[in-house]
Amino acid sequence: MELEGVEIEDTFAEAFPIKVARVLITAVNEKWAMTAAKEMTGFGTSVIMCPAEAGIDRIASSDETPDGRPGVYAMICTFGYKALDAQLLARIGQCVLTSPTAAVFNALENGEKEFNIGFKLKFFGDGFETEEVLNGREVARVPIMGGEFVIEKNLSAKAGVAGGNLFILAKDQMAALTAVEAAVEAIMQVEGTITPFTGGVVASGSKPSSSKYKFMHATINEKYCPTLKDKIEDSELPADVNGVFEIVINGVSEEAVKEATKIGIEAAVKVPGVVKITAGNFGGTLGEYKIQLKEVLGL
Amino acid sequence: MELEGVEIEDTFAEAFPIKVARVLITAVNEKWAMTAAKEMTGFGTSVIMCPAEAGIDRIASSDETPDGRPGVYAMICTFGYKALDAQLLARIGQCVLTSPTAAVFNALENGEKEFNIGFKLKFFGDGFETEEVLNGREVARVPIMGGEFVIEKNLSAKAGVAGGNLFILAKDQMAALTAVEAAVEAIMQVEGTITPFTGGVVASGSKPSSSKYKFMHATINEKYCPTLKDKIEDSELPADVNGVFEIVINGVSEEAVKEATKIGIEAAVKVPGVVKITAGNFGGTLGEYKIQLKEVLGL
Amino acid sequence: MELEGVEIEDTFAEAFPIKVARVLITAVNEKWAMTAAKEMTGFGTSVIMCPAEAGIDRIASSDETPDGRPGVYAMICTFGYKALDAQLLARIGQCVLTSPTAAVFNALENGEKEFNIGFKLKFFGDGFETEEVLNGREVARVPIMGGEFVIEKNLSAKAGVAGGNLFILAKDQMAALTAVEAAVEAIMQVEGTITPFTGGVVASGSKPSSSKYKFMHATINEKYCPTLKDKIEDSELPADVNGVFEIVINGVSEEAVKEATKIGIEAAVKVPGVVKITAGNFGGTLGEYKIQLKEVLGL
Amino acid sequence: MELEGVEIEDTFAEAFPIKVARVLITAVNEKWAMTAAKEMTGFGTSVIMCPAEAGIDRIASSDETPDGRPGVYAMICTFGYKALDAQLLARIGQCVLTSPTAAVFNALENGEKEFNIGFKLKFFGDGFETEEVLNGREVARVPIMGGEFVIEKNLSAKAGVAGGNLFILAKDQMAALTAVEAAVEAIMQVEGTITPFTGGVVASGSKPSSSKYKFMHATINEKYCPTLKDKIEDSELPADVNGVFEIVINGVSEEAVKEATKIGIEAAVKVPGVVKITAGNFGGTLGEYKIQLKEVLGL
Repeated sequence: MELEGVEIEDTFAEAFPIKVARVLITAVNEKWAMTAAKEMTGFGTSVIMCPAEAGIDRIASSDETPDGRPGVYAMICTFGYKALDAQLLARIGQCVLTSPTAAVFNALENGEKEFNIGFKLKFFGDGFETEEVLNGREVARVPIMGGEFVIEKNLSAKAGVAGGNLFILAKDQMAALTAVEAAVEAIMQVEGTITPFTGGVVASGSKPSSSKYKFMHATINEKYCPTLKDKIEDSELPADVNGVFEIVINGVSEEAVKEATKIGIEAAVKVPGVVKITAGNFGGTLGEYKIQLKEVLGL
Repeated sequence: MELEGVEIEDTFAEAFPIKVARVLITAVNEKWAMTAAKEMTGFGTSVIMCPAEAGIDRIASSDETPDGRPGVYAMICTFGYKALDAQLLARIGQCVLTSPTAAVFNALENGEKEFNIGFKLKFFGDGFETEEVLNGREVARVPIMGGEFVIEKNLSAKAGVAGGNLFILAKDQMAALTAVEAAVEAIMQVEGTITPFTGGVVASGSKPSSSKYKFMHATINEKYCPTLKDKIEDSELPADVNGVFEIVINGVSEEAVKEATKIGIEAAVKVPGVVKITAGNFGGTLGEYKIQLKEVLGL
Repeated sequence: MELEGVEIEDTFAEAFPIKVARVLITAVNEKWAMTAAKEMTGFGTSVIMCPAEAGIDRIASSDETPDGRPGVYAMICTFGYKALDAQLLARIGQCVLTSPTAAVFNALENGEKEFNIGFKLKFFGDGFETEEVLNGREVARVPIMGGEFVIEKNLSAKAGVAGGNLFILAKDQMAALTAVEAAVEAIMQVEGTITPFTGGVVASGSKPSSSKYKFMHATINEKYCPTLKDKIEDSELPADVNGVFEIVINGVSEEAVKEATKIGIEAAVKVPGVVKITAGNFGGTLGEYKIQLKEVLGL
Repeated sequence: MELEGVEIEDTFAEAFPIKVARVLITAVNEKWAMTAAKEMTGFGTSVIMCPAEAGIDRIASSDETPDGRPGVYAMICTFGYKALDAQLLARIGQCVLTSPTAAVFNALENGEKEFNIGFKLKFFGDGFETEEVLNGREVARVPIMGGEFVIEKNLSAKAGVAGGNLFILAKDQMAALTAVEAAVEAIMQVEGTITPFTGGVVASGSKPSSSKYKFMHATINEKYCPTLKDKIEDSELPADVNGVFEIVINGVSEEAVKEATKIGIEAAVKVPGVVKITAGNFGGTLGEYKIQLKEVLGL
């Protein structure tokens, strides 16, 4: 298969169930909404050793926010609801409540589960907090040094999808990097998805366990490492490929992850030097979802 | 006391001991060094509910980095060395090892303690990793999809200082916000210090425990809340003050925190609308360090 | 009149006819599209002493650009078509043709006038240039060191509107600045409009001619200068106003300027400290267009 | 010759005399100092069709500015002093006087020529302007809506050097782009130099006149165009080179241009995929200065 001259491998990304909360952070300007969202979602690339997988979904224009201010949608994901409750409380309480002019609203429709994060955080007001209905939402208003912190009393979560992915193979490292940046930038527009790794990019795609070290649960995917291409016998890299980056996609639904996969690939193939797009899976044995590249691209 | 027409209260910031690691992250450009450093130090405002206090120290120019590439110094702080070891491993392993073109070097001289983070992370290479001496530093080189990940084998930590602080009081909220932004921007130049809160700013400075809710360990510092000025009897806010933000400063030493306090205040008083600068303490009963504003400013 | 507690003066902005070209610049990523657009529209605040009034209209997502890459819409305005032709040639030839990965497309429908800028610039290819139809557009493709420069052969222009404006009055300078930044950010979303001054903001709104210096064609509008409030007798500033900034808006049509005025005001009134919004006019004697604040806000 | 595995051609950049003014713009924060400096230096890539060559020199920290605020150094260059006087007046009057919180100071020592730009612009104050000595500098203070505009009365200029340059040749277009970005970022640190083209980069390096079109004064340098490599017989591009970008450097002196050339090359060779560095000249017949790559690198 080919898209704009770039080979698309007929394979699939294998993805997994996860629990997802989606919130809207607003502020006096986009800069501060984004700053709060970034701090809240930091140290959140992979639940392997981070307390959550988290990231920016997309920027919200003022006319779609409950308080008419600029905003940013963000998502926080964990494997279970208990951890998600704790992560929402800690990340919002420590990183958003403390941030200048911030407000927090639920941004997930049809949630399966509600967490009373706003209810809990309001007690920080030490009796000076108030409650009101703001554009149909029950919110708490907490006086703080910087003014007031507003938060919706209940935040919703639901079952979502983690580990959607795509691999970008290019002639060299910088072409692959520019392409993966373009893909991440494009996915920022796709409602209900995040690319949780640093800057949206995975530079160190891995395989489960290890060939050599029994104590390691994950090690390099050497078949896709350019510097090992001529040192191993089973490299998966074409002769003209010297740069590879991966994107991992989490979403509120399989459809959202599929859309992000499509948009990401369409952006990547526009970048000069990209040779091939593929995806990572475990033969379909581990994950609940199979995101077929052929299907998402309509090829 | 006054500085450029702004009242400086004759008081002190009360600060505490903490353990600090300082690392240098380099990358192919400053954008990626900063992106990795931000992800690594995210969800790191206060150890009250974050796993660490962390932030960007300053930008490193290419001529001061071991690999001659652009870089960013960052600091990670916890109350004990055991937690610091775990945080370094998790944050570097999940947020920097995975980031395009990143390398990690120790950036703390005269450390009291060494953590073999680079030694541990090298096993991710599954036998393909190598070791070398790079400009006098022992590093591991791990082949990854995106190229190679380079990390110094040992990273140092030492006893540092947490909780240095200053309060900026201004005529209104936006003047206070612009001033606190200017102060944070200025402190970014001060070697060996971070302002760990979101965007460097604390919008919700607190008091210990609660007057009303026994289950709360910290609640609003109502005496400094502008919207409560006329509702309580013991407000500390002058009549013309309607905006207050705090900066918290952690440093590798008391001297570094003092220098940052000085530089931050000098930047803040330049912003139109700033009325008064003060600092937070608990009467000197809790913290080991007293950062006197009078002394740091030479007033 | 009032909007969210902010006084709206019942007045109008007086605006003028101007000639407008609107182009779309695409590039390998949004960063380079924006960089090219900013250089092309620089030194372009006012035709009083700049060769054009120019600015960024809005960001284009990949799915709306002819080449499927990220893009930025920009506008260039002059009082006559001859100057516009010259400015398009010079600004695109010097600032966009020279910019990495850039392409230029017409972005004005129903133009009254066409300039063959792409036809002229193709000769830079010294015979190696080619022509083709790209998604229904006639373009020239010029080989350059950085790859290829693609430009649509004809760029359109039409009669537009210049000098739409609004004044933001706030309690102090920094509140006014934050509010004007928020308004400019919001207007960035409005199709077919630019805010040509530096960062979209006018800090030095003027009156025609001078009371004192015969050789000056424009001087300060002292009635709106906060530092002169107590030094003159006819200040227009309310007692609690100490900061004022203006936004000037140019658009492809009166409707576009009206929409931007509305969106800008709605964003500004959200910022704490804003006291009043008004607009500038010359009693209706000079300009062809009267943008009534009451009307655009539906008050 | 080689530097870190990259071929350095033993050639020279041919550079020319130009007149240079250097100013310091300060503002309430770095964002606004930079915004004003960018607008002032926009539409300023090459005097061939721009009214000036202009750009950002470097960021100034607060402790080195006369008013203790953040700042940005910028340079404006033209072939004669008369044009420089006019450009300073127009660019500062239209783009900086109008910009929020901006101030302008002379930033050139040992100038040969002084232009009384501040003296001229003060009349905008319509009699309300004042004069004072600020840290040893004679400045005018003009009340404006946004507060006050401060400008040093005299700005200096001197003979400088234009057209220093380097060419970066890489395996593909994106590697060359990343490398040229890194080089421009590094040159931003070099005192007294600018890279006037869009984003600091020239994507369309040219040769004088044309082989085919008599009316063209400059056309593509086809020997360095990757897409023409196999279509012409005298391509200068090695077989493995598919991306080329140029940097043009102007400076206050030959030494400054040499230093920028050195720093730029050292940054570029760090980027994976870079194959060769060279420079552009006309055989030494046209320019007054010869910047030898061998000499600046000490090879």
